[in-house]
Amino acid sequence: MNTSMIRYILGYILKIEGVLMLLPCLTAVIYHETEGIIYLAVAAAAFFIGFLMSRNKPKNTVFYLKEGCIATSLSWIVLSFFGCLPFIFTGEIPSFTDALFETISGFTTTGASILSDVESLSHCSVIWRSFTHWIGGMGVLVFLLAILPLSGGSHMNLMRAESPGPSVGKLVPRVKHTARLLYLIYFGLTVLEIILLLLGGMSFFHSVNTAFATAGTGGFGFRNDSFASFSPYLQWVVTIFMILFGVNFYAYFLVLFGKIKKALIISEVQWYFIIIILSTGFISVSLARSSMGIGESITHAAFQVGSIITTTGFSTMDFDLWSESCKTILVLLMFIGACAGSTGGGIKVSRLIIMFKTVAKELNSYIHPKSIKKIKMDDKPVEHEVVRSVNVYFITYIIIFCVSTFLVSLEGNDLITNFTAVAATINNIGPGLALVGPAQNFGFLTAFSKYVLMFDMLAGRLELFPLLILFHPRLWKDAWNQKQKIRAKQQQNKNV
Amino acid sequence: MNTSMIRYILGYILKIEGVLMLLPCLTAVIYHETEGIIYLAVAAAAFFIGFLMSRNKPKNTVFYLKEGCIATSLSWIVLSFFGCLPFIFTGEIPSFTDALFETISGFTTTGASILSDVESLSHCSVIWRSFTHWIGGMGVLVFLLAILPLSGGSHMNLMRAESPGPSVGKLVPRVKHTARLLYLIYFGLTVLEIILLLLGGMSFFHSVNTAFATAGTGGFGFRNDSFASFSPYLQWVVTIFMILFGVNFYAYFLVLFGKIKKALIISEVQWYFIIIILSTGFISVSLARSSMGIGESITHAAFQVGSIITTTGFSTMDFDLWSESCKTILVLLMFIGACAGSTGGGIKVSRLIIMFKTVAKELNSYIHPKSIKKIKMDDKPVEHEVVRSVNVYFITYIIIFCVSTFLVSLEGNDLITNFTAVAATINNIGPGLALVGPAQNFGFLTAFSKYVLMFDMLAGRLELFPLLILFHPRLWKDAWNQKQKIRAKQQQNKNV
Repeated sequence: MNTSMIRYILGYILKIEGVLMLLPCLTAVIYHETEGIIYLAVAAAAFFIGFLMSRNKPKNTVFYLKEGCIATSLSWIVLSFFGCLPFIFTGEIPSFTDALFETISGFTTTGASILSDVESLSHCSVIWRSFTHWIGGMGVLVFLLAILPLSGGSHMNLMRAESPGPSVGKLVPRVKHTARLLYLIYFGLTVLEIILLLLGGMSFFHSVNTAFATAGTGGFGFRNDSFASFSPYLQWVVTIFMILFGVNFYAYFLVLFGKIKKALIISEVQWYFIIIILSTGFISVSLARSSMGIGESITHAAFQVGSIITTTGFSTMDFDLWSESCKTILVLLMFIGACAGSTGGGIKVSRLIIMFKTVAKELNSYIHPKSIKKIKMDDKPVEHEVVRSVNVYFITYIIIFCVSTFLVSLEGNDLITNFTAVAATINNIGPGLALVGPAQNFGFLTAFSKYVLMFDMLAGRLELFPLLILFHPRLWKDAWNQKQKIRAKQQQNKNV
Repeated sequence: MNTSMIRYILGYILKIEGVLMLLPCLTAVIYHETEGIIYLAVAAAAFFIGFLMSRNKPKNTVFYLKEGCIATSLSWIVLSFFGCLPFIFTGEIPSFTDALFETISGFTTTGASILSDVESLSHCSVIWRSFTHWIGGMGVLVFLLAILPLSGGSHMNLMRAESPGPSVGKLVPRVKHTARLLYLIYFGLTVLEIILLLLGGMSFFHSVNTAFATAGTGGFGFRNDSFASFSPYLQWVVTIFMILFGVNFYAYFLVLFGKIKKALIISEVQWYFIIIILSTGFISVSLARSSMGIGESITHAAFQVGSIITTTGFSTMDFDLWSESCKTILVLLMFIGACAGSTGGGIKVSRLIIMFKTVAKELNSYIHPKSIKKIKMDDKPVEHEVVRSVNVYFITYIIIFCVSTFLVSLEGNDLITNFTAVAATINNIGPGLALVGPAQNFGFLTAFSKYVLMFDMLAGRLELFPLLILFHPRLWKDAWNQKQKIRAKQQQNKNV
């Protein structure tokens, strides 16, 4: 295992975090908040440690998928650890567990909060919370790839470990350019949203916060009632941008290169919109029936559907009070999630398409046992390896889901709370139903449940396997054996 | 498609049902119940129609998996249709939907009832209800195979369509002998249970009913409080037999042939017992803490765990009142289910073992990408085809589950009711939680929900695909085209 390369990458990540933390520092200066000093101190510490770790570039820069996964999951853990320190030192979230939960929830773009009163936070902490969404949304390693020169296949192994979806590949020939283009689109859309929000009369500070949380499909708000008190115009801007950030970024690539027609016929994007339209329609009718105006019904339905399917987690009303069939739709949307290659979480629409096609193929094989047809998507055959990995992903997902639900149930809350708490975190959404509904928060849970849910948030964001192999005994056995071998060799060389 | 062969098999099935219905007739004679006349009439009608349908043996007796599946699912539907008629005509369950629900619930060994007062039923209806469990448990087509001479691969195609589990093969060289041996073991164990129940002071009528419902892992009781009012001895006898009928019958084959050691190391059976012991332990501790005696706690825990994992559905207490973590365990057990090749339902332990091994293999492939290891079970490599079909089964299962839950939610009941109603039917268990808990029944649901759940019961019992292909448009298109071709040929011949 190329441990020195992992150390090098972690160092770089810390340096980046140090720089990114200057944004809350700047905010503190603008609003004359003393909390800024703490952010500055933590930023300096992160940068300094990162500098020490990445001073010597390793001679051997090649590394494999295994190292890519380990580097990625460790990066996210290290990022979250340093990211939560300001919350503790400013005293705004004094408990380490709570601060870590809030930060992991931020970076993984979950948006599940332990805070009951968000409005009492300092401006710099509010912006840091939202900013973690923006950083985590596109992925900090993707950012690293845009600036760090790495050799050979190493790029792909990092990208594959962090990017959401079953089959993210190189969109343009060089990974570096892909990463840069991704960030360019991401940045552009964020700026566009800020402008549109400003036009709706939202303050600059709130616009930036909203745009960060929307872009990362995160969901941290800055008001205790999330988006309930904003105007319909602002609600619609957020709705549209949530949905836009849930689209496969490959579509934007095509649009950028002028292939608009090709972008429109991506089946994942088509299904994504079909699901949104059908769900919004169903819920609108249901809301309109219960004495709400038609316009208002559609606004609320579209906002909540967009918020849940993209796994953002904003809300304009307490959907825990909706009818059971509407709630069931929302729960199903929680699992469906956004498109692959977007900033959203969940199982992803493309995985579901592949799964549905797998089932259809199986049924066909009963009727015509001899026909051998490959599963196709967008007129291209889907590689057997992709189908297999989608299946395995799904099974692993369900296993983690069941184990987590059981572990959280030990606390004694009701089944709906446990079930949706896990669903809301592993799918990186934020609010669930019942005790963790949109009008509630996660603060009341025990530390044990919180750590389980933190694991779920990370597992969900990193698409399970990169995080899971960290816990695989064989990995550590191998690393140990390798170390022993090197030691033995050194001993031998000394003796010679 | 060999339609005449399907007709022939359906006819045979009806004849068998006619004969089997003589048991309630006999019961009516013993208890002087006039309802017996109705049973006799329906039995005669079924036999007569069956006789007409199976009078001419088709020349071409060969048929493929497709026909096997269609014959199987149609058999179950026809069986249930005729089976429900006595309930309607005796006026005990006047609604057709309810009567069909009760009968499908019987044959699929689910045990979900729409009756609020079981104790008011006539003896002959009680025995018919329990008997449907016994018939459905081992499978009526397996019974057919034991008596009907079929050629070539046709046997296997019927057996495969009806037998539960991922990889049921021929246990002894000839399918006919396998089927006979299966019924021999089944019959033997049932008789043994009746004797042990009689020794515990239960009446002969109740012993037979209990044994039927246990053997099929069905769960229809004859008392409104299921098994709560019986002695601990009787509860333990039922517990042990429920668990025994959930064991892979392959193990009994090995025991019959003197290979006891080999039977003990079947990993599916080992894991089945490990899960039972761990769950019982956990729940016992939880019950003992809440002021129940230790002995009583273990009795109740073992009974409920055995009842749920084997998907029987008897109960000795209202487990809907248990702690949330205990309920979560029960919900998880609902999905796990019994062993493959048993009379139990659920996903099956062996499928779960294969799924866990698939995940472990995937994790290993991240660490050692070049190692190519096949998944092994009981020291034998598991064929790629089996792994694939387990994955596809699981995906299909989850899809049906989600769609059903949504459809049932349209009725407006709470999420737990909808979720566990589907879980209890697709896994062929019987009681769920909340409104369909062990102290409640399914009678209050709308006809629409009942038909959804009937579909789930059949899908669960027939392991999804045999039932699903009935709804595949391609099947009917093919059949239609074939018919047109034959007609065209006949026309041509006439013209010549």
